[in-house]
Amino acid sequence: MSIVVVGSVAFDTIETPFGSAERAIGGSATYFSIAASYFSHVRLVAVVGEDFSDEYRAAFLSKGIDLEGLEVVAGGKTFYWHGRYGKDPNERESLATELNVFEAFRPILPASYRDSEYLFLGNIDPDIQIEVLNQMEDAPFVGCDTMNFWIEGKTESLRRLLGRVDILFINDEEARMLSGERNLVKAAGAVLGMGPSAVVVKKGEHGAFLFTREFTFFAPAYPLAEVTDPTGAGDSFAGGFMGYLAGAPQRNGRHLRRAMLCGTVTASFTCGSFSIERLKDIAEQDLDDRFRTLVDLVSLGEE
Amino acid sequence: MSIVVVGSVAFDTIETPFGSAERAIGGSATYFSIAASYFSHVRLVAVVGEDFSDEYRAAFLSKGIDLEGLEVVAGGKTFYWHGRYGKDPNERESLATELNVFEAFRPILPASYRDSEYLFLGNIDPDIQIEVLNQMEDAPFVGCDTMNFWIEGKTESLRRLLGRVDILFINDEEARMLSGERNLVKAAGAVLGMGPSAVVVKKGEHGAFLFTREFTFFAPAYPLAEVTDPTGAGDSFAGGFMGYLAGAPQRNGRHLRRAMLCGTVTASFTCGSFSIERLKDIAEQDLDDRFRTLVDLVSLGEE
Repeated sequence: MSIVVVGSVAFDTIETPFGSAERAIGGSATYFSIAASYFSHVRLVAVVGEDFSDEYRAAFLSKGIDLEGLEVVAGGKTFYWHGRYGKDPNERESLATELNVFEAFRPILPASYRDSEYLFLGNIDPDIQIEVLNQMEDAPFVGCDTMNFWIEGKTESLRRLLGRVDILFINDEEARMLSGERNLVKAAGAVLGMGPSAVVVKKGEHGAFLFTREFTFFAPAYPLAEVTDPTGAGDSFAGGFMGYLAGAPQRNGRHLRRAMLCGTVTASFTCGSFSIERLKDIAEQDLDDRFRTLVDLVSLGEE
Repeated sequence: MSIVVVGSVAFDTIETPFGSAERAIGGSATYFSIAASYFSHVRLVAVVGEDFSDEYRAAFLSKGIDLEGLEVVAGGKTFYWHGRYGKDPNERESLATELNVFEAFRPILPASYRDSEYLFLGNIDPDIQIEVLNQMEDAPFVGCDTMNFWIEGKTESLRRLLGRVDILFINDEEARMLSGERNLVKAAGAVLGMGPSAVVVKKGEHGAFLFTREFTFFAPAYPLAEVTDPTGAGDSFAGGFMGYLAGAPQRNGRHLRRAMLCGTVTASFTCGSFSIERLKDIAEQDLDDRFRTLVDLVSLGEE
């Protein structure tokens, strides 16, 4: 099945204590779409400037990602972010954020996208997320990301959106902020009460929870001995998750649980390099190997 | 099989935003021994003052814990700790620490203890931990706890001890400090290089890793909707782990993995009340239920 993703495509300059990358490709929709492409057909909706050359398009096209929805603003510049990580990959400082063409982004879905069965609304203004959702023909299965900025500043729009979303991806602090509950189990229960049938609470290096009304599942993070650059890990998680689900024979508890491990695996590859260097070239065997390692990591070894 | 535990028995005054407890029983050896008592016969070595009345002994005796090694110092006062937790249970402030009789504690193992097959060295001066180990007759299977204070202040003694320890229990920050490695996978590898055949890295609400030379296992924390008081959770983890292992038919990967879940379960009950209130009264069915919940939490649901 096809999955539409709406979000950012950007150039990132990243510094870490171990190296750096200059104006490498980044953005939530970039990481999401490449991660999802291993499991499903992906249709991208985003905006870039004239500085986004064919060389950058090639990374998407080689993964079979549909770029009909990639708007190019004549004379415009692509979203640019410059960040620096400390020795602890959880400590991150933004040195520059230039929204450029992303600032006035009003996504229009190409007609050919509108019958897609899956939709992922990357982290943008909830009012725009609703506009995108309204453009879909049938009721797709909707995944959604958000952040503290919208939780605080656009509470009502976000709540309206959540009533129409199937699965929300947030991190632990956002879950606490959105629900007003410190305890994560209670926070997730409160978020489920806002509409979604599932909530994925991402805890970075500490793994991720999937809460539904029927069951709770936990996926440990992949135990990496080297984290080169965690930028995009959350988006890669959502991409692996949603992509797997869109490609699965059924959408049930069994496949939601497997989707959690696929998201963990794609996120782990993203952490292994700057930008999409590692993410864009994962062999099927590598995906399988890390999936199996995750299963073994929590297995009681009775089989 | 029998397990000897050496550590502290204390009176704790605890304040949390949700309640408080005054001079309730605490201490590492208390939590460890009661948790372990669900799986094995436990022999306690600790010191208390004359203020430690029969009413406090009853909690141990009702669990079949051998108190021959509980030294009572005439005219002395029991170790006292006063702590306060913030809304976030990870934020803890020590308001008073009165070592009292614990300050001059030089543990002497009763003759009847010395043939025990398992030994747990609670968090005390590594030189004293070595003295205790030297008192054992045969080479027992040795578990050990430590803390940043000894890692920094008694590095050499600790390293000498680690060469004789089978399994070390530490938290993530201690693992980083002991190894000098920020990354947990690398840190654990370095600690394994110091002697132990297994390292348990406790991450509190984020679960615990077991690293061995043969395999890595991860146990998520039990997802609690209420954490009343986390005091003693780490000691209860070690107690459930070591107790299960001492009672298991074999000591192999399968049972080390199950020990991780038993430790997680006993720790979860400790968090559910002040002091040992909940820990001391766990029905077998409750243990089984939480064990099963942990298995389901990470199960792909294919069986």
